[in-house]
Amino acid sequence: MAEEEFPNTTHEGFNVTLHTTLVVTTKLVRPTPAKPILPVQTGEQAQQEEQSSGMTIFFSLLVLAICIILVHLLIRYRLHFLPESVAVVSLGILMGAVIKIIEFKKLANWKEEEMFRPNMFFLLLLPPIIFESGYSLHKGNFFQNIGSITLFAVFGTAISAFVVGGGIYFLGQGFFFCVCVFVCFILQADVISKLNMTDSFAFGSLISAVDPVATIAIFNALHVDPVLNMLVFGESILNDAVSIVLTNTAEGLTRKNMSDVSGWQTFLQALGYFLKMFFGSAALGTLTGLISALVLKHIDLRKTPSLEFGMMIIFAYLPYGLAEGISLSGIMAILFSGIVMSHYTHHNLSPVTQILMQQTLRTVAFLCETCVFAFLGLSIFSFPHKFEISFVIWCIVLVLFGRAVNIFPLSYLLNFFRDHKITPKMMFIMWFSGLRGAIPYALSLHLDLEPMEKRQLIGTTTISIVLFTILLLGGSTMPLIRFADIEDARARRRNKKDVNLSKTEKMGNTIESEHLSELTEEEYEAHYIRRQDLKGFLWLDAKYLNPFFTRRLTQEDLHHGRIQMKTLTNKWYEEVRQGPSGSEDDEQELL
Amino acid sequence: MAEEEFPNTTHEGFNVTLHTTLVVTTKLVRPTPAKPILPVQTGEQAQQEEQSSGMTIFFSLLVLAICIILVHLLIRYRLHFLPESVAVVSLGILMGAVIKIIEFKKLANWKEEEMFRPNMFFLLLLPPIIFESGYSLHKGNFFQNIGSITLFAVFGTAISAFVVGGGIYFLGQGFFFCVCVFVCFILQADVISKLNMTDSFAFGSLISAVDPVATIAIFNALHVDPVLNMLVFGESILNDAVSIVLTNTAEGLTRKNMSDVSGWQTFLQALGYFLKMFFGSAALGTLTGLISALVLKHIDLRKTPSLEFGMMIIFAYLPYGLAEGISLSGIMAILFSGIVMSHYTHHNLSPVTQILMQQTLRTVAFLCETCVFAFLGLSIFSFPHKFEISFVIWCIVLVLFGRAVNIFPLSYLLNFFRDHKITPKMMFIMWFSGLRGAIPYALSLHLDLEPMEKRQLIGTTTISIVLFTILLLGGSTMPLIRFADIEDARARRRNKKDVNLSKTEKMGNTIESEHLSELTEEEYEAHYIRRQDLKGFLWLDAKYLNPFFTRRLTQEDLHHGRIQMKTLTNKWYEEVRQGPSGSEDDEQELL
Repeated sequence: MAEEEFPNTTHEGFNVTLHTTLVVTTKLVRPTPAKPILPVQTGEQAQQEEQSSGMTIFFSLLVLAICIILVHLLIRYRLHFLPESVAVVSLGILMGAVIKIIEFKKLANWKEEEMFRPNMFFLLLLPPIIFESGYSLHKGNFFQNIGSITLFAVFGTAISAFVVGGGIYFLGQGFFFCVCVFVCFILQADVISKLNMTDSFAFGSLISAVDPVATIAIFNALHVDPVLNMLVFGESILNDAVSIVLTNTAEGLTRKNMSDVSGWQTFLQALGYFLKMFFGSAALGTLTGLISALVLKHIDLRKTPSLEFGMMIIFAYLPYGLAEGISLSGIMAILFSGIVMSHYTHHNLSPVTQILMQQTLRTVAFLCETCVFAFLGLSIFSFPHKFEISFVIWCIVLVLFGRAVNIFPLSYLLNFFRDHKITPKMMFIMWFSGLRGAIPYALSLHLDLEPMEKRQLIGTTTISIVLFTILLLGGSTMPLIRFADIEDARARRRNKKDVNLSKTEKMGNTIESEHLSELTEEEYEAHYIRRQDLKGFLWLDAKYLNPFFTRRLTQEDLHHGRIQMKTLTNKWYEEVRQGPSGSEDDEQELL
Repeated sequence: MAEEEFPNTTHEGFNVTLHTTLVVTTKLVRPTPAKPILPVQTGEQAQQEEQSSGMTIFFSLLVLAICIILVHLLIRYRLHFLPESVAVVSLGILMGAVIKIIEFKKLANWKEEEMFRPNMFFLLLLPPIIFESGYSLHKGNFFQNIGSITLFAVFGTAISAFVVGGGIYFLGQGFFFCVCVFVCFILQADVISKLNMTDSFAFGSLISAVDPVATIAIFNALHVDPVLNMLVFGESILNDAVSIVLTNTAEGLTRKNMSDVSGWQTFLQALGYFLKMFFGSAALGTLTGLISALVLKHIDLRKTPSLEFGMMIIFAYLPYGLAEGISLSGIMAILFSGIVMSHYTHHNLSPVTQILMQQTLRTVAFLCETCVFAFLGLSIFSFPHKFEISFVIWCIVLVLFGRAVNIFPLSYLLNFFRDHKITPKMMFIMWFSGLRGAIPYALSLHLDLEPMEKRQLIGTTTISIVLFTILLLGGSTMPLIRFADIEDARARRRNKKDVNLSKTEKMGNTIESEHLSELTEEEYEAHYIRRQDLKGFLWLDAKYLNPFFTRRLTQEDLHHGRIQMKTLTNKWYEEVRQGPSGSEDDEQELL
């Protein structure tokens, strides 16, 4: 065990740093050490552990700081064609290589203990990302397109999972030999056959999770139809949850050794489990969100922003804990609670807390995403790989094919019901934007496969696919824009808008939520308030739910809110005036 | 092990909740389970662990939410005489009792595994509290009184530690038998004698940490001299760090079995270790703070608040990780880094991030404090107690005596050098305000004492002392104010200011930092800028350090800042207008 090699470094000072950073890369993805711990830990052990946690924290923070500077440089020097995720993953790869070169002799030690326990991803890193997705969702467009989004997210992901999972399973069975004779020289059936049906399906499910971050970046750059933007963005968020639930379903089946039961029974069981997970978690999240709205409507914490903000933080995390505690999907619950909270609870907050929520969520989600991407890059050198070129290539083909089978037929089907048709160009963009990100990676680490080799194979393959999609598809976005979108480019020039793949810069410039993204206020009102007759839920919401769950603001409330904001602004201004580098314009009054 | 009793509750749903809450109280203070873990954990174990973490998270958040509502009710119904810490601890005790009554039969199981590993306190809960203390410090007054504060914090704490530690040691040796014949019938020398010199000293050190939260509450209520306020507040923050370092020193000596070496050698060794810890950690924290100032001065992240805020979060935690990693005191480092960052780095931020930092830090620190106080209350029923009434009484006497020996002689000494004398009444208030809080409790859990009984004895005694000071001293603040301060009461009536022991409400009302607390702006400038000739450091700071470490704001910067704030205000206003419960005054323009 790496930790046990540490001498008690109490008096050695700085010279342990380098060794520790190495251990740290290992430990980050496996937070609790997997060594036998005595029931009563001695203080010395505790101290050593604290020391090692200290270095872990320090190293991760350092990586994050470097990533922030990198993202800043991307924005500063207007390298907008490069998505942030690509840059951060590349930096991670570079750092992993540097660490490996420096400490190559220590390699033997930390190869053994690399079967990660990625609880940290699921407990600490994913919840803020998913909650932020839900919270910053453009709810008007989202609820208008809820049908199409659900179709893509639930059926589309299931199709993709079945195509990839089934493809791998049948490839393993040698079924494709006769079909694909021309590629059989690279097909190593003996390896692939190790995956049984549920394992294949689990892998197919996890690899079907499309990353919302990368998708946003591409769509913002392409200036596509706002409704299409919402469609795919909504799909990519919901789809994460669906993919996680599907993977858990497959895992659950493996655990109960149901894979030997006949196909239909397995399928029905899986379906039941999936429906329970999906609707149970969604209901739990929605319920928590509604409770939070009622609590913050009836308990007026607006005079004490720290209590209010604290309450919001608690309610943001509460559904996750509860859902995981009763074996539902925490991610699903937190997504729905985020959507509900931003739709109702948000409007019961004081202006300061509204701003605090948006900015803090954004920052924390950014840090978590960056952390995941950086360690995705680092993991290339810290993971014990089992790289099967044929398997990886087959998987990439299946993944691209699976997404095609998802997008094109479903879009065709939806066009019968939609006013706003999905053109073939749009379909192509939707297909191309199926980047894989952090969630497949984390899920693959989480997967419980029995022989070690299979775990390594799945891990390596997932990392390869994620890197392929992020680096190749993500990196080729700029040429794609140039190639496919000459008209849009002209429109862009007219608007004097630069092509921009940086999510962070967009956030910084506008300092506002996506609540107001594409539609102007009048359009929004036209869509949202005057078209009450159009959709049942919107009418119900405007007529009954909103008045019940949100506070009706009085003139006095507006006045208080304005005063609160003015106080903050004046406060800042006063601090600037009397601060150490105070400027000279003391006379000029603010407001 | 409690976790192993869980069936795989995947299909049991809600009925595990109650049992789990019980386990949860236990697990919170011992985050990583102390059971032997196989090197490669199976997925089922991982899932069970996740499930149990889920319930842990849910239960802690629920407790926090109830505490927030309690604090809100205190503010709402103007129960200002009751400090928040008293209320939260009482709530914790109540909840502990309820849990115990409901689940009395399960007691036998979780008594065994109660020797906590309180790493969570030190990794997650303490850093935000201490960093916030440093960051929201009134630096003008602090640096003016740095000499007195350091004297109280370092020498005062050492005196208190020596008095309490020495007292316990000599009581254990039966030394006091002849002196205190009249109390010998309650003196059980056989128990006390189990503590050797370093153990006694460690206990003396940990029990000398005065809680800043409680202190602020009392001092704000008493409307004391602002300089005295700063003096004691500054002492109580620095003193935490000193107490932690002293405790670690004593622990380090125990570990190295130095206790059998002669007194002087031990003392010199301890002194050397203490000086290394104290100055090393302070230097590390200061250095990190200065680096953060330079980074944020020269890398302009003001256009991207999420990057800026992310960088600040990273720099806030960085010194903690680094210091712990190289065996220095993380708390000490984070305190100094907080002070330096609020003095320099803060002024390099955009206004939004400045407000975000202050509000978020305050909220997080509040949540952490509440968490600690609540679990302090809960721990009464979850801790395996070894309650020795005589030992507790002796310790309380020694603690009060130790603080008296700290405050009165040092104040007398300081009066020779101070313009602003410390009156006997002030000394009494300073003595009385020595409430013990979260840090002694956490440190006592952290202490590494060999026989289990000794650990339990120290733990129970610490909890008793903490509760005694919080509940009795804290609760009797109001009578004390009435009794001792008739003149102040009159002044208060004149100012129409209510006596208020709620820290949170104060924060909420003013929504500003303590940067500007007591002195008006003119006074501040008079003290701080025009009296450059008075103190060496202030002059150096104004002349060289500030220009080097902070950004000189141009007119353009001010303009940008103002626009950023206006954008935020307008954003809020627009959202209110078009939000679901939009008010009718659409015509009225903001700003």
